[in-house]
Amino acid sequence: MRLSQFPIFTTKETPADAEIVSHQLMLRTGMIRRVAAGLYSWMPLGLRVLHKVSTIVREEMNRAGCVEMLMPSIQPVELWQESGRINAYGRELLRIQDRHDRDFCYGPTHEEVVTSHFRQEFHSYRQLPINLYQIQTKFRDEIRPRFGVMRAREFLMKDGYSFHMDEAGLDEGYQRMRSAYSRVFERCGLEYRIVVADAGQIGGSGSEEFHVLAEAGEDLLAVSSEGSYAANVEAAVCSAPAASRSAPGAAMEKVETPTQKTIAELSDFLGVAPSQCLKTLLVVGSDGHPVVLLLRGDHELNEIKAEKHPLIAEPLQMASDAQIEQVFGAPAGFIGPVGINAPIVADHAALAMADFVCGANQNGWHLQQVNWERDLPLPQAADLRIIAAGDPSPDGKGTVSLVRGIEVGHIFKLGDKYSKAMNVTVLDEGGKSHTPIMGTYGIGVSRIVGAAIEQHNDDKGICWPTPLAPFTLALLPINPGKSERVRETTEQLYTALLERGIDVVIDDRGLRPGVMFADIELIGIPHRVVIGDRGLEAGTLEYKARRDAESRDIDNSLEAILDAIS
Amino acid sequence: MRLSQFPIFTTKETPADAEIVSHQLMLRTGMIRRVAAGLYSWMPLGLRVLHKVSTIVREEMNRAGCVEMLMPSIQPVELWQESGRINAYGRELLRIQDRHDRDFCYGPTHEEVVTSHFRQEFHSYRQLPINLYQIQTKFRDEIRPRFGVMRAREFLMKDGYSFHMDEAGLDEGYQRMRSAYSRVFERCGLEYRIVVADAGQIGGSGSEEFHVLAEAGEDLLAVSSEGSYAANVEAAVCSAPAASRSAPGAAMEKVETPTQKTIAELSDFLGVAPSQCLKTLLVVGSDGHPVVLLLRGDHELNEIKAEKHPLIAEPLQMASDAQIEQVFGAPAGFIGPVGINAPIVADHAALAMADFVCGANQNGWHLQQVNWERDLPLPQAADLRIIAAGDPSPDGKGTVSLVRGIEVGHIFKLGDKYSKAMNVTVLDEGGKSHTPIMGTYGIGVSRIVGAAIEQHNDDKGICWPTPLAPFTLALLPINPGKSERVRETTEQLYTALLERGIDVVIDDRGLRPGVMFADIELIGIPHRVVIGDRGLEAGTLEYKARRDAESRDIDNSLEAILDAIS
Repeated sequence: MRLSQFPIFTTKETPADAEIVSHQLMLRTGMIRRVAAGLYSWMPLGLRVLHKVSTIVREEMNRAGCVEMLMPSIQPVELWQESGRINAYGRELLRIQDRHDRDFCYGPTHEEVVTSHFRQEFHSYRQLPINLYQIQTKFRDEIRPRFGVMRAREFLMKDGYSFHMDEAGLDEGYQRMRSAYSRVFERCGLEYRIVVADAGQIGGSGSEEFHVLAEAGEDLLAVSSEGSYAANVEAAVCSAPAASRSAPGAAMEKVETPTQKTIAELSDFLGVAPSQCLKTLLVVGSDGHPVVLLLRGDHELNEIKAEKHPLIAEPLQMASDAQIEQVFGAPAGFIGPVGINAPIVADHAALAMADFVCGANQNGWHLQQVNWERDLPLPQAADLRIIAAGDPSPDGKGTVSLVRGIEVGHIFKLGDKYSKAMNVTVLDEGGKSHTPIMGTYGIGVSRIVGAAIEQHNDDKGICWPTPLAPFTLALLPINPGKSERVRETTEQLYTALLERGIDVVIDDRGLRPGVMFADIELIGIPHRVVIGDRGLEAGTLEYKARRDAESRDIDNSLEAILDAIS
Repeated sequence: MRLSQFPIFTTKETPADAEIVSHQLMLRTGMIRRVAAGLYSWMPLGLRVLHKVSTIVREEMNRAGCVEMLMPSIQPVELWQESGRINAYGRELLRIQDRHDRDFCYGPTHEEVVTSHFRQEFHSYRQLPINLYQIQTKFRDEIRPRFGVMRAREFLMKDGYSFHMDEAGLDEGYQRMRSAYSRVFERCGLEYRIVVADAGQIGGSGSEEFHVLAEAGEDLLAVSSEGSYAANVEAAVCSAPAASRSAPGAAMEKVETPTQKTIAELSDFLGVAPSQCLKTLLVVGSDGHPVVLLLRGDHELNEIKAEKHPLIAEPLQMASDAQIEQVFGAPAGFIGPVGINAPIVADHAALAMADFVCGANQNGWHLQQVNWERDLPLPQAADLRIIAAGDPSPDGKGTVSLVRGIEVGHIFKLGDKYSKAMNVTVLDEGGKSHTPIMGTYGIGVSRIVGAAIEQHNDDKGICWPTPLAPFTLALLPINPGKSERVRETTEQLYTALLERGIDVVIDDRGLRPGVMFADIELIGIPHRVVIGDRGLEAGTLEYKARRDAESRDIDNSLEAILDAIS
């Protein structure tokens, strides 16, 4: 390729509305341009990278025995009613009415469509297992699209669906996908981690996420200091503390706390640690009546864990002020579990507290030296909290630390959620009707591009892993207009490199060397070779890898270049 | 590929709802499956063909110097308001509101989006010319989707847009695209014709369509018997007859025609040819008042030509019965141009008539022996009719015959329609602000698949041109389960063929030979090699090209196969 015929749109300014470095760099390099909130065009430079990611994904899926197909982006809502997912998905589902007022949606995933095809076309255990995938534009109507392609509304995804006769088959298919996904991220040159995940709206049993580790990641991951445990904090299990509760001390007493409503204010005012204060919350129960939730003061509620509790309504909904007043006889800030008449669910850690502080259910008052079983009965225990740095690792090996990750892949064991809801059966070996079970697998193809930049950049711009780079090598002729030797050498090298299958680009835009060097570094091309008259005189070219601090001279030969970039 | 791992879904039954052979065969081979009206999934077999077409299109676009990008499928309606196209496009534009009630549409083409990017990124004549293209899923909300992928609502399209400083530059870019498109259809192995086209809603000056010739084509094409002229009948020019009008005969007279309203009835009743009767129509004018249109009785109105006439409203709208009564004082069926007071536009051929019949503007009566300039003044002349078989060719060479075609490509000179409406300027060589002009180019990638089948099929199924075939060669082992020699030979040939880059498939589904042969013929794989014990005994394989009537023996060797399929 020649840059004179391949338009790139680099800018020096950092765009004000781009919060994270990958978004800034994708705009500054002109890889993408915004069309509307969460909608981007992939300009020629960006599309080359997107195609490189797609190709790696497609090759690894095919190698793993998956079969590619392409379903329509627009789906009839009837299928979503059949699966029952229409209500769970909410407003991220972009609803559409056609000219005949029939209801459609822009597919965010394709479980329903693929299951309906399976139902029509697959009838026997002999046809299983099967893994069908597509690489396709999806739409999720994010309430607040941000971070460029990382949380765009329209994005490119690889979504795959597998069908199996039994759990053992699903396990095997799941593990094969786990390996294939690992190969994808390895080939992309990304540092990633596989973590235990929450299954979210898709439903199902086991699931794991693939995260590219990066500071800008929206997800917090809990990783074990010694073992191999890693989980999205959403999904990380917090076991009950190993140590037993201390014995009660002095008697419970009421203390005046005129304006101290938050844990921080209370802890300051009374001179006790936040971990000695009890956090009391009121949420809507699954029967519509309020349920009290208790946490240690320094812990945060994990809403996903809470809404999965059988007593608690899903999605999680905080109770109203009126309900708080009704249950506790006091306003929020002064409420506690002593002497009330409502179902209570307490986090394991809250039940390990002794001599704690909680609201007195009277405006302006708290209780201190409160103790379970002495001052109030032990409530039902559950895992309700978000894991915190320093917590014991759930696998029992060391403690947990928190790192940030960008979710780029997700694999699920779906079970029979869709096959059952949509009445899918095949005949088993004995000729009996049998409900197959499913797995579902996704890779955020366009998100990988942003995630790779988050992990690979410096103050000069992007530092692409070679497999994703828009070009592998840039030839930069100095003043080619004035030197026929520079021009000819550049052209000869270009032709020879193309013949060797190297993805090479000439910068023949006629820019000043400094501007050209800065552009090529900003774009992040992994290798550059400068062709100048002075070097040619001495029989040399100037080579620099994108991550090298300094350039070095190499022989003016194809072999020397191939050697340098290998 | 092995068919045991690549699911195909062939059926013997011809689907009742598929009207044309390509739709029937795409369903029977399981290439596509319907999801909803005009929405299809490309099953694995079909997607292989779609990918082959896409690859040919991409290679030829890149070879012609076009640059690929990818714009979002969802576009903000604001851009369509800016270009003014929002009203012209009508209900085929799928309108969408997002969760914040902002207006979007699913892009049927991307003139607005690409022009808005150009406006931002291109500022100088030095950056021109440029041709940007994408291969992308589009949506048009067809009122009556039909013919499978030929007129689907969601479809895959290559759309490209070029920007130029002047007409000469646009001409050059247009010609380059014309050549590139020709190469695409040649490489696809299709018999096609380039025809003069109407520019439709996109607007602009010159345009040509690429049609695959096939009986099932929705378009009628007028082609010259001797010259190279070819045009969509919508756009085919009908010149004024060369011969001058005959001299008037007997005086005009009124004749009673009690119930004869149509040309056919009138011609029968009076014993005159339809070409001696005048057809009188009333349409809405561009100022809202009615305009009379006159045609020779055997000619049909070309609505596209009519609505382009400055006196006539666009889109074309027939006048109401009340307006007819008001202008003519008589009901439709008995109306004519004699003695009325309204603007009249007559087709050239109508003005060449002498001694003709027309309505007398009195219920139950017509006039005969009517003559221009004697009985009524000569009205304004225009080209208003659809060209007919046997008409003189517009290029003066022979006569016109009509053939049917499937539009698979379209190239337009757009001019400044979008650049002007959207205030696009670049600096010219003199540093002055200049409005660039545009071209727009489209290929119906998914439609090509259907069109190729229309042109290449027989009573056994599809006969793919090799470049589009899902697989080039099928290896069909006979009873491999019983013969290790058959199994081993098949595997060795398979590996050797893959190494030579041949797109080969083994049918290892374990079907009976007859069923297997029928399936492979239905799918249309261009070459098949049967491996059987009897042949191997004699050192031979059985080869048959899809279009051959009989199979023939070839040596059991890689070279013999390569020779046979070359």
